[in-house]
Amino acid sequence: MAPRSRHRNPGTALTAADGPLVTALCGGVGAARLLHGLHVSPDLDTVTYTLAGAISRERGWGLEGETWNTMEALARYPSRFSWFGLGDRDLATHLFRTQRLGDGVPLSTVTGEIAAAWGVEVSIVPVTDDRVETMMDVEDEGEIGFQDYFVRRAHGVAVRGVRFRGADTARPSPGVLDALAAAEVVVICPSNPVVSIGPLLAIPGVQDAVVSRRDRVVAVSPIVAGAALKGPAGRLLAELGHEVSVVGVARLYAPLAATLVIDEADAALAPAVEAAGMRCLVTPTVMRGPAEAAALAKVIVEAA
Amino acid sequence: MAPRSRHRNPGTALTAADGPLVTALCGGVGAARLLHGLHVSPDLDTVTYTLAGAISRERGWGLEGETWNTMEALARYPSRFSWFGLGDRDLATHLFRTQRLGDGVPLSTVTGEIAAAWGVEVSIVPVTDDRVETMMDVEDEGEIGFQDYFVRRAHGVAVRGVRFRGADTARPSPGVLDALAAAEVVVICPSNPVVSIGPLLAIPGVQDAVVSRRDRVVAVSPIVAGAALKGPAGRLLAELGHEVSVVGVARLYAPLAATLVIDEADAALAPAVEAAGMRCLVTPTVMRGPAEAAALAKVIVEAA
Repeated sequence: MAPRSRHRNPGTALTAADGPLVTALCGGVGAARLLHGLHVSPDLDTVTYTLAGAISRERGWGLEGETWNTMEALARYPSRFSWFGLGDRDLATHLFRTQRLGDGVPLSTVTGEIAAAWGVEVSIVPVTDDRVETMMDVEDEGEIGFQDYFVRRAHGVAVRGVRFRGADTARPSPGVLDALAAAEVVVICPSNPVVSIGPLLAIPGVQDAVVSRRDRVVAVSPIVAGAALKGPAGRLLAELGHEVSVVGVARLYAPLAATLVIDEADAALAPAVEAAGMRCLVTPTVMRGPAEAAALAKVIVEAA
Repeated sequence: MAPRSRHRNPGTALTAADGPLVTALCGGVGAARLLHGLHVSPDLDTVTYTLAGAISRERGWGLEGETWNTMEALARYPSRFSWFGLGDRDLATHLFRTQRLGDGVPLSTVTGEIAAAWGVEVSIVPVTDDRVETMMDVEDEGEIGFQDYFVRRAHGVAVRGVRFRGADTARPSPGVLDALAAAEVVVICPSNPVVSIGPLLAIPGVQDAVVSRRDRVVAVSPIVAGAALKGPAGRLLAELGHEVSVVGVARLYAPLAATLVIDEADAALAPAVEAAGMRCLVTPTVMRGPAEAAALAKVIVEAA
């Protein structure tokens, strides 16, 4: 998805009132249809709830003060989706989105409506209004859906390949290419390169739009000291034949971004990043709170 | 719908272990798709929850001890369905049903799965697996969906006509005609004749099956002392040109049922019921608890 704002970078927390026009690439396609007929968009909701200050700080996803009565009641039934963490209040978002999509309203419009309902002024745009599904080819089982891999199996199985079903014929949603073209800074957030940034770039036109702004594109490495801070990025990169280091990330992002921001823990690898074709900035990248996030955002903006 | 059991009549509470084989007609089609993609079947669920002893005694619908967190969260969004009383635990039933129907499983099968999950041994069968919607033609507005009329407008608008969209081409679900053919007693419960019993009879083959068992069919009048105990049956009957009395009910049911059970409050009208072509039984019909329900059930079974 491609949030766009003069004020904030959703992946971090830059809150300066008169900052530059920033477009950030920061999540998966998030158009997974998890339950039949129930449209769940975890990534879009995570960004929205975070910007609304409503995200659960403890979990990092879903709402603070959430209750789980529907999930508990679902356990009575032989539902194959009972593993999914569906909070009662979060469910209201899915019901509203499902209803609007059923009315024929595009996902990008509904996403704006949801953001508005939460008082979020940043423009949050899904990369496409078309249906795209991240499919994981896993050992012994073959292709399974991303949420099945990520939540149900807790990303504990070996992945042989990743495919974005439907991406070939999908079109960028309104505003996505304009946001990339008009941005003073394009940020590739420290999201998972394979399953968060990958699907964005798989939509025809998006990768070209990023490449054409390469000088203004700043990527933040999701790998710190040879591992991902969270989630399966490290394991996935290794399984798909990439080096799990800032150098591996630089080899992936060099065609897209002029600059890679790496953590101080990896300072010794800065020359290797430059050798891979990217300008390298070394700064603290681990965001424990708003202060670190703001400092990182300042570095990013100044870099571009 | 047509519950069928050797043990219990879901409309009442006959619990004799070796009672007769009873088939009861007792509710609307209950296949309303209320939210896009969310299959809500209020009547089926009311019967299931009642037989499971889980129904809210206070409300008469939904679950005892229900919470409403999703509904409250939905109020944030401009949802046109925020008027619908969707409990958190009840929602789990809708999600499970939606998911199974999405898998191509027939409604009658899913209904059995839901009943089994609640430990209900009575066979609860929706009258059809096809999509049928009760449409209300209301003054000033034209046709609206039944739930819109019943819940949102609290049945407070004048009705000019009722139509069961899709009924013409619907087929009875597996077991419905057999249950009617094999029953020792067929009960038309004191449900709304227009919008609860009407849609059952609108499915091709059902009315003929009931008529062919007329001698064994016992109806219980939903009208007591010139009014419905609950809901819009009285108003609806009047608006559609019927007399709001046990005599009006007898004129409606005479082609289907040999016997009409009326309340003691209407004892004086028994001759008029007989003149309308039905045998008339006078007994207390207002069920305040299991004891009255069991007594009424005994009268019904003995009548057939």
